[in-house]
Amino acid sequence: MPRVVECVPNFSEGRRRDVIEAIADEVRRTRDVQLLDVQKDESHNRCVVTFVGTPEGAKAAALAASRRAIELIDMNVHRGEHPRLGAVDVIPFIPIFGVTMEEAVATARALGREIWEQLRVPVFFYADAATKPERRRLPDIRKGEYEGLSAKLGDPAWAPDVGDPKPHPTAGVTVVGARRPLIAYNINLTTDDVEIAKKIARAVRESSGGLAAVQAMGVKSESGRAQVSMNLVDYTQTPVQRAYEAVREEAAKYGAEILESEVVGLIPLDAIVDVARRALRLRDFTRDQILEAKLME
Amino acid sequence: MPRVVECVPNFSEGRRRDVIEAIADEVRRTRDVQLLDVQKDESHNRCVVTFVGTPEGAKAAALAASRRAIELIDMNVHRGEHPRLGAVDVIPFIPIFGVTMEEAVATARALGREIWEQLRVPVFFYADAATKPERRRLPDIRKGEYEGLSAKLGDPAWAPDVGDPKPHPTAGVTVVGARRPLIAYNINLTTDDVEIAKKIARAVRESSGGLAAVQAMGVKSESGRAQVSMNLVDYTQTPVQRAYEAVREEAAKYGAEILESEVVGLIPLDAIVDVARRALRLRDFTRDQILEAKLME
Repeated sequence: MPRVVECVPNFSEGRRRDVIEAIADEVRRTRDVQLLDVQKDESHNRCVVTFVGTPEGAKAAALAASRRAIELIDMNVHRGEHPRLGAVDVIPFIPIFGVTMEEAVATARALGREIWEQLRVPVFFYADAATKPERRRLPDIRKGEYEGLSAKLGDPAWAPDVGDPKPHPTAGVTVVGARRPLIAYNINLTTDDVEIAKKIARAVRESSGGLAAVQAMGVKSESGRAQVSMNLVDYTQTPVQRAYEAVREEAAKYGAEILESEVVGLIPLDAIVDVARRALRLRDFTRDQILEAKLME
Repeated sequence: MPRVVECVPNFSEGRRRDVIEAIADEVRRTRDVQLLDVQKDESHNRCVVTFVGTPEGAKAAALAASRRAIELIDMNVHRGEHPRLGAVDVIPFIPIFGVTMEEAVATARALGREIWEQLRVPVFFYADAATKPERRRLPDIRKGEYEGLSAKLGDPAWAPDVGDPKPHPTAGVTVVGARRPLIAYNINLTTDDVEIAKKIARAVRESSGGLAAVQAMGVKSESGRAQVSMNLVDYTQTPVQRAYEAVREEAAKYGAEILESEVVGLIPLDAIVDVARRALRLRDFTRDQILEAKLME
């Protein structure tokens, strides 16, 4: 059985094509790693590189890509709408199969040490790799952004996990961590009334007392429908179907129904298997019974 | 992307362990093929060997295993409960990915010619490889069984598709074909009354006017529940969830509910994806969005 982690580093460059390609090329030329996707966002001035590989391969690819990004990006001239702390803004590792969360955390911590030792960029660990509860969430770590880093690192409570308490002069700070796969999941309602989607979002999201590991907001979909747009940050805590049911029940209070739902980007096989297991009340079903999964062993 | 077919030959030996192992060994030693399972049934006096591989590899493995089976099995002394025509009774090829049904049919036809040319066993083609509508279904081809073969092949309507119209003296005839993956799917009811399961089976199976490509019977489950035991022989015609819903609706007529369901053996990923798509009303979802499926490309 192969050992596979996913790695999704975010770099603070979303406009200069040659810079983005140079960073992606470092991943392409690393052994035991497969580049899956490069997404750039011009208004955020940010790109997201997705690749998979062995933990060792993924760590090597992330280090090589970081080295190149730090050479080519100067945060002192960076402007963009998305909050950020550094040229290599955040590097999450996600265990996919044959790898435990503990191993993903160990990979993140080892990479963090290398980023400091070899590239002289201080590092915070976040999510499952965090060293303190107040460093688990990215928004907390990002508060003050790149421009506020000197002040933030001067506060002993915000000393970096690795490296000197002083930002790199052009690359700032990097946040490295390990987390479960996040599922971007949107539900479109039969109504156009965005206020209903907002009320449902408030009811289902964890931060206002709803479902564990669910982030949600109410927006207008591209087709003009009211949409509950969610991040399921740990589908083992709140499975996709439970989120679906919760939205359905809340919508019913306002006379609305679910029109359709959509998964944005990738979803782990186990999350899909879990939906099928619940929908069919399947007994003793494992992913090994899926022919294609058996072939991957 | 790898090209993969599944091959599930059935041999007329379910008791002599050394014979079964000798047949399976031929598959084990063939290149580009992976043995997944060997199941023997003593009362049927029959074994089922499951393997996957490239079309070329699977054809070579099926030929080698057939050669060995023909050496070791004498149908003149074979007794068993399951209907059969030959030592190598039936060889289905199932397209899994990167292979079309047309290619699976071509593989079956090529193997059939080799079985005649190299092993001198006449061959019928069945299912999607059939040359006439009346040869699509195995029960029709098997009518008369091994003992009736000389008479059957003498009828011009039942001349073999390849080879002389005379059975092999110890190996009879072999049936080779291509078909979609079959899903063995059982639903346990909240009642112990097997008569209810039998009524539901009659209502949902194709042969008595029910759902397309569904075979069903009512039986007692191992735990003593009434069970609707089904073969979904083409889940693109009747998806798993539609079979589930039909049983649920029929059961309701008798005041029964679905307790649980189970998939026996393997199921194709697309069938599971289809269940999730229906359960969540997913829009524009493809299996390429499953991280693990993307890795197999």
